[in-house]
Amino acid sequence: MTVRSRFFTEAEGQAVGVENAAAKGDVLLVCEHASATIPQKYGTLGLSPEVLSSHAAWDPGALAVARLLSEKFDATLVYQRFSRLVYDCNRPPESPSAMPVKSEIYDIPGNFELSEAERFARTSALYVPFHDRVSEIIAKRQADGRKAVVVTIHSFTPVYHGRFREVEIGILHDSDSRLADAMLAGAEGSSLRVNRNDPYGPEDGVTHTLRLHALPDGLLNVMIEIRNDLIANEGDQAAIAGFLHELMEKALSSIDG
Amino acid sequence: MTVRSRFFTEAEGQAVGVENAAAKGDVLLVCEHASATIPQKYGTLGLSPEVLSSHAAWDPGALAVARLLSEKFDATLVYQRFSRLVYDCNRPPESPSAMPVKSEIYDIPGNFELSEAERFARTSALYVPFHDRVSEIIAKRQADGRKAVVVTIHSFTPVYHGRFREVEIGILHDSDSRLADAMLAGAEGSSLRVNRNDPYGPEDGVTHTLRLHALPDGLLNVMIEIRNDLIANEGDQAAIAGFLHELMEKALSSIDG
Repeated sequence: MTVRSRFFTEAEGQAVGVENAAAKGDVLLVCEHASATIPQKYGTLGLSPEVLSSHAAWDPGALAVARLLSEKFDATLVYQRFSRLVYDCNRPPESPSAMPVKSEIYDIPGNFELSEAERFARTSALYVPFHDRVSEIIAKRQADGRKAVVVTIHSFTPVYHGRFREVEIGILHDSDSRLADAMLAGAEGSSLRVNRNDPYGPEDGVTHTLRLHALPDGLLNVMIEIRNDLIANEGDQAAIAGFLHELMEKALSSIDG
Repeated sequence: MTVRSRFFTEAEGQAVGVENAAAKGDVLLVCEHASATIPQKYGTLGLSPEVLSSHAAWDPGALAVARLLSEKFDATLVYQRFSRLVYDCNRPPESPSAMPVKSEIYDIPGNFELSEAERFARTSALYVPFHDRVSEIIAKRQADGRKAVVVTIHSFTPVYHGRFREVEIGILHDSDSRLADAMLAGAEGSSLRVNRNDPYGPEDGVTHTLRLHALPDGLLNVMIEIRNDLIANEGDQAAIAGFLHELMEKALSSIDG
């Protein structure tokens, strides 16, 4: 009669996915918008199949790229197994975007006028265990005298509110820009359009995970946003993962040096 | 390296206290403001010893009365082992009163400009496990075909913002007033001044626990506020517990009948 068993069916399991838990590398990958899955108890949230498979529900391609990076860096990967339409794990419970009533142009009827009980259920089943797990991994590394470089992997839609976005890779940061600066310097002259805090920045509230896990202890960190048309198939995912791996390796060794 | 072990010292233990867990009675007692204890990591929150032992930090006498009622009703009692100055478990994380910057006339410096990481730590260590435990107990009773009558026990200060409060016992309710109505009817003609939704009511946001645990499933519920000068010593606590026990027993059987 745990929280989990009251919220998820047995087949659904639980909220947090962890891969490569015994990894030896410094990087810790986090993917908050990895999945479009809606827990059975919520049905469709009143949405069409198109919306339920769109970028409103998840960051298409982000988990695939995060998995490739997990292999390349020998990095532990923590990801959310359910859609951000139910709880957006990159937002605190006090943010209106945590259980959004609107995403871009889509109303989300299943999130209208949520009761306090419903908000508690989602916070308790989806948000808290996710960030507890990340905290636990970081605390364990600190106890073992190991580093933790916090890297969150996201994707964004090429067309938003009807406008095409030119940026291809966003390197986002909050008040600690060390890793982002080094990556942006390394990306100069590359064939991809790599921008700082674009198409979102800390003023949009997207650096919650960095604020929770990296800033308090001064851990190196960065949030990566990839335009999702560039990672729509395995070949492209591998190419982008290769690009990001090289960029970040170079950046990390320039900082260490 | 659990949340608990990162938040509390070993001696402090954990946030939730449960007494009489194997109780056979229908009543489930909840005491959110049972304790004035501040976890060691927060020191004094910048407050004087006077404030730290005052009604700002806890509901004096409430836990003592709840314990007496737990015995009389053979009721399970769930209480918070730490001060509401750190997290007020009768408020959701999105409420400004959850981690208050001011209580009555006192500023709370240790709560000024809390980071998202700090808010998460408190929500995760104090609020979520508390209400998870209450939910778990109710779900278990429902699975066993047993009733759960949710009763929260609070106390209030006789003088607030310089004004004396005439009310002695407040019977508070949200949208479901069945138990409160029956108790108020039973209190007519008693020597104590027993009022409805006084000195607080649902519009003050004080019915969060009732909204979380009783309203969704239509469980009988009530919130009891006792003026704390009436429960300042053991004799008075016993007298008030006796009064409330009789009042609620009568009310419950009038509803059952």
